[in-house]
Amino acid sequence: MITRLSSLFLRTLREDPADAEVPSHKLLVRAGYIRRAAPGVYSWLPLGLRTLRKIEDVVREEMNAIGGQELLFPALLPREPYERTNRWTEYGDHLFRLKDRKDNDMLLGPTHEEMFTQTVKDLYSSYKDFPVTLYQIQTKYRDEERPRAGILRGREFVMKDSYSFDMSDAGLDESYAAHRRAYQAIFDRLGVSYAICQATSGAMGGSASEEFLAVSENGEDTFVRATDGSYAANVEAVVTQPGVEKPIEGQPEAVEYDTPDAETIATLVEWARGEGLDVTAADTLKCVVVKVTAPGEEPELLGVLVPGDREVDMKRLAASLEPSEVAMAEDADFRKNPFLVRGYVGPRGLAANGVRVLADPRVVPGTAWITGADAPNRHVVGLVAGRDFEVDGYIEAAKIREGDPAPEGQGTLTLERGIEIGHIFQLGRKYTEAFDVQILDESGKRSVPTMGSYGIGVSRLMAVLAEQRHDDKGLNWPVEVAPYQVHVVVANKDAAAMEAGERLAGELDDAGIEVLFDDRPKVSPGVKFKDAELLGMPFAVVLGRSFADGIVELRVRGGETLEIPADEAVAKVQELVRG
Amino acid sequence: MITRLSSLFLRTLREDPADAEVPSHKLLVRAGYIRRAAPGVYSWLPLGLRTLRKIEDVVREEMNAIGGQELLFPALLPREPYERTNRWTEYGDHLFRLKDRKDNDMLLGPTHEEMFTQTVKDLYSSYKDFPVTLYQIQTKYRDEERPRAGILRGREFVMKDSYSFDMSDAGLDESYAAHRRAYQAIFDRLGVSYAICQATSGAMGGSASEEFLAVSENGEDTFVRATDGSYAANVEAVVTQPGVEKPIEGQPEAVEYDTPDAETIATLVEWARGEGLDVTAADTLKCVVVKVTAPGEEPELLGVLVPGDREVDMKRLAASLEPSEVAMAEDADFRKNPFLVRGYVGPRGLAANGVRVLADPRVVPGTAWITGADAPNRHVVGLVAGRDFEVDGYIEAAKIREGDPAPEGQGTLTLERGIEIGHIFQLGRKYTEAFDVQILDESGKRSVPTMGSYGIGVSRLMAVLAEQRHDDKGLNWPVEVAPYQVHVVVANKDAAAMEAGERLAGELDDAGIEVLFDDRPKVSPGVKFKDAELLGMPFAVVLGRSFADGIVELRVRGGETLEIPADEAVAKVQELVRG
Repeated sequence: MITRLSSLFLRTLREDPADAEVPSHKLLVRAGYIRRAAPGVYSWLPLGLRTLRKIEDVVREEMNAIGGQELLFPALLPREPYERTNRWTEYGDHLFRLKDRKDNDMLLGPTHEEMFTQTVKDLYSSYKDFPVTLYQIQTKYRDEERPRAGILRGREFVMKDSYSFDMSDAGLDESYAAHRRAYQAIFDRLGVSYAICQATSGAMGGSASEEFLAVSENGEDTFVRATDGSYAANVEAVVTQPGVEKPIEGQPEAVEYDTPDAETIATLVEWARGEGLDVTAADTLKCVVVKVTAPGEEPELLGVLVPGDREVDMKRLAASLEPSEVAMAEDADFRKNPFLVRGYVGPRGLAANGVRVLADPRVVPGTAWITGADAPNRHVVGLVAGRDFEVDGYIEAAKIREGDPAPEGQGTLTLERGIEIGHIFQLGRKYTEAFDVQILDESGKRSVPTMGSYGIGVSRLMAVLAEQRHDDKGLNWPVEVAPYQVHVVVANKDAAAMEAGERLAGELDDAGIEVLFDDRPKVSPGVKFKDAELLGMPFAVVLGRSFADGIVELRVRGGETLEIPADEAVAKVQELVRG
Repeated sequence: MITRLSSLFLRTLREDPADAEVPSHKLLVRAGYIRRAAPGVYSWLPLGLRTLRKIEDVVREEMNAIGGQELLFPALLPREPYERTNRWTEYGDHLFRLKDRKDNDMLLGPTHEEMFTQTVKDLYSSYKDFPVTLYQIQTKYRDEERPRAGILRGREFVMKDSYSFDMSDAGLDESYAAHRRAYQAIFDRLGVSYAICQATSGAMGGSASEEFLAVSENGEDTFVRATDGSYAANVEAVVTQPGVEKPIEGQPEAVEYDTPDAETIATLVEWARGEGLDVTAADTLKCVVVKVTAPGEEPELLGVLVPGDREVDMKRLAASLEPSEVAMAEDADFRKNPFLVRGYVGPRGLAANGVRVLADPRVVPGTAWITGADAPNRHVVGLVAGRDFEVDGYIEAAKIREGDPAPEGQGTLTLERGIEIGHIFQLGRKYTEAFDVQILDESGKRSVPTMGSYGIGVSRLMAVLAEQRHDDKGLNWPVEVAPYQVHVVVANKDAAAMEAGERLAGELDDAGIEVLFDDRPKVSPGVKFKDAELLGMPFAVVLGRSFADGIVELRVRGGETLEIPADEAVAKVQELVRG
């Protein structure tokens, strides 16, 4: 069936919507793909819905290809299963909660681990039923604090979530590897530029964990890649190369100095240079005091040591300390603990007062530092780790910088921005244990299956494609998910041209090509061309000035324009669409 | 791709679920199509999801065929548009309401008139854009008081809702007719047995209104059909044949009697017969006192007169009085109004005390009645309408009975039960006026478009098909929406039979047939047959005892079994699937 612009429910806009900041948001609204219904909640207009469904189909095909079985859970869920895993509470403000007319607590599902696990428990009981991989493509709800960027981060959004259930860890490795391959196939088919980043597994527990990040300067996530291309990780997961240990013997003794007005690293380095020391910020040691709260415990102080040329990256620190929560120590904490002298905190004072101290991996035994002497206006020079102070362990907390060495000698790191489009990880037995899933194994013993958890942001992918593939004129869809494969534009006022356009659209349609036909009789060629570029079908056939000579233009969106005989147009479009 | 029962995520149940009353609910759960997540909220397991999607596709194809354009609105909606139409309040307890983290009121959409209207207003401004028909196939939410019967009446359910927007009433008639045809095509393709019933347009306003009711003894709706087949209506819409007017002159005067212990129609008739009167309950007049509350007004008493052999049908009465609400008068009302003498209320007392009186259409001028005399233990005989009392109008309130005359001489009425599967009606300008949709017409004047509103219960249709097409062994899907078209059962323990089954399943798959393959090695033929009947694929090929002789069984679900040469199976199945 040919879709005609004369009747398509569409109104393109010349102006960017006022609330839009990133190109995908501006263009998807201007081109009439989506429309805002509430903050972070969007309607899918006809063109947008077609592309969304096509993305879903690509995901579905590749999930089926690895043996995934599709089902569909409700969005409206009862509280009990989420109470059982404590997520009813843990989700905090991110969860949409409501009550039904009988005052039962319900929620809008932000993710469905509980439902998958409970259903497998109910249906399966023997090892013969395993492994099994289940998935759904479903509308999810999260009450984001700052919904932004249109469908890049919505409060109602479409996600593919899948779970593998295996009887053994080796089985989980296989299921994980199958998903990794399926995700690569999906993102490759969609033509997304992405990196597979090592990730921390976070509060979910589990072991292997990787994120698929679409490369985009408007991404909210920062990740690193090694210059030789062999390593990528999100910043939380980057492992710092440890410093080189040095012999302690023969190093000069630590000496304390009066250092008035040297409360910052910069002023401290200035003072040291004034004393004739050949040092930089990297030779100073920053002692950052934070408060860590383990689940169900009281907050506890923690000292974090990083070289003075580095900031503490709170996201990295938080990831390292999960599931505990972390916050900077406040004035009140300093007042309560007089041994904490602001600007002059050192590792010795922390240790002497029973505060746990964790250090950046560069702070290895034998390294000497200029740092606080735990008294106002006093610093110490030549304080040697392993001689003058000990640490309770090491921690990934320092900010990653462009040019830092990659963890395993793969060159140096570059910093990039990305948008999370997929996440695969080995979840383990957290949920199967919570729901007491007991399966009889081959020897007749009860065994708890292990799970993998895998997600793809389906509606977000549409924004990612718009983000990565637009130009200043509009969108540019890959053939696989374009709402229509070809856009036929009659840009010639002759009745003969309109008739020929009708005929061509019909022939393309007969050939199995999806056709968007700009048959608007009173719209100027200029407006039609602008709309065609804005809407972003991969190919356009234009019946324009040279139509009288039997020539049509075949325009590749964002690429070349060919002039070809009108009667070759169908064959040529078929060739291009097949790729 | 062949689906194998050895790995399909499915567990059939031999026992009916405890909460299930109707066959579709029992069978869909037992056959592993759906699974309860909360009251009125169901998960779709793999088989169920396949059938649901196929039903959606049938609906989609027929909607596209009449030029409908598909889009998709969110389920999570802001309060404002629903406030504007007052439905935020009017929906009462049926609406799922919630608050987001910023304390904004939101709701889960029970229906989307507001969103469609607002979107058309935003995108369209000229008559040239009209007519337009938009639809979505979307998950809706209604907090039913008594969710029942599985997916027959859920709280989360899938609906197709569409709206037509026309510049003229004639255009609306055309859009309405197109939808009517599309609905017939959809239900015919699905093989549903249904009646198109005249319906009241109810609170929505508007004129033409028809319901598509699937015939089912487990239906919640009662409808009537004329014996000649030319008329069907839901009971609320049935028009009563008026009584025959009689001359008043010459009729005896009304006489009051002491009628102790005759407070009911039965005892009154008994008393009258004791007095030598040749009467039945149909000669008495029941005066029912109700309270009617118009929107925003105080409740007001109303007298409803019906022949004594009829009950007042509160659903019919409510439909007649919409948008006012109606309830029976209570003891307190009788106490407050001493002229209401329980058991002896008559039309004269009501009128004398300013109570509005509406009568059944049989109570025409000249008809004489035995009725209450407005005093304890007193009745009046021979009270003639139009002489001894007047009514303020007529009303459809009396219960319809099997055998009642059809409204326009199409024989008599039969009463049947049905399940509402579709509703089409001419909504008019209620929403376009509420949202002030102003469209420039051909003469450059502003004009408000008129709307049609059309719904199909998509997930409910799956239950309806199960309800209408099951037998005591299980389900029986039409080819068009069966999860798989053919079920291949290996019921022979020879390795050769399993190999042949594999080969046959592969050949059927190659021929484009959707195959469910029971390849379970250790399951008995009896269990496999039971499962095949329970699951209800339209055709099964069984490799059983006669397989050694090159013969397979081709079983038509609910029909005949053919023995055919194994090498003809593919061709024969193809023939059957094509129909």
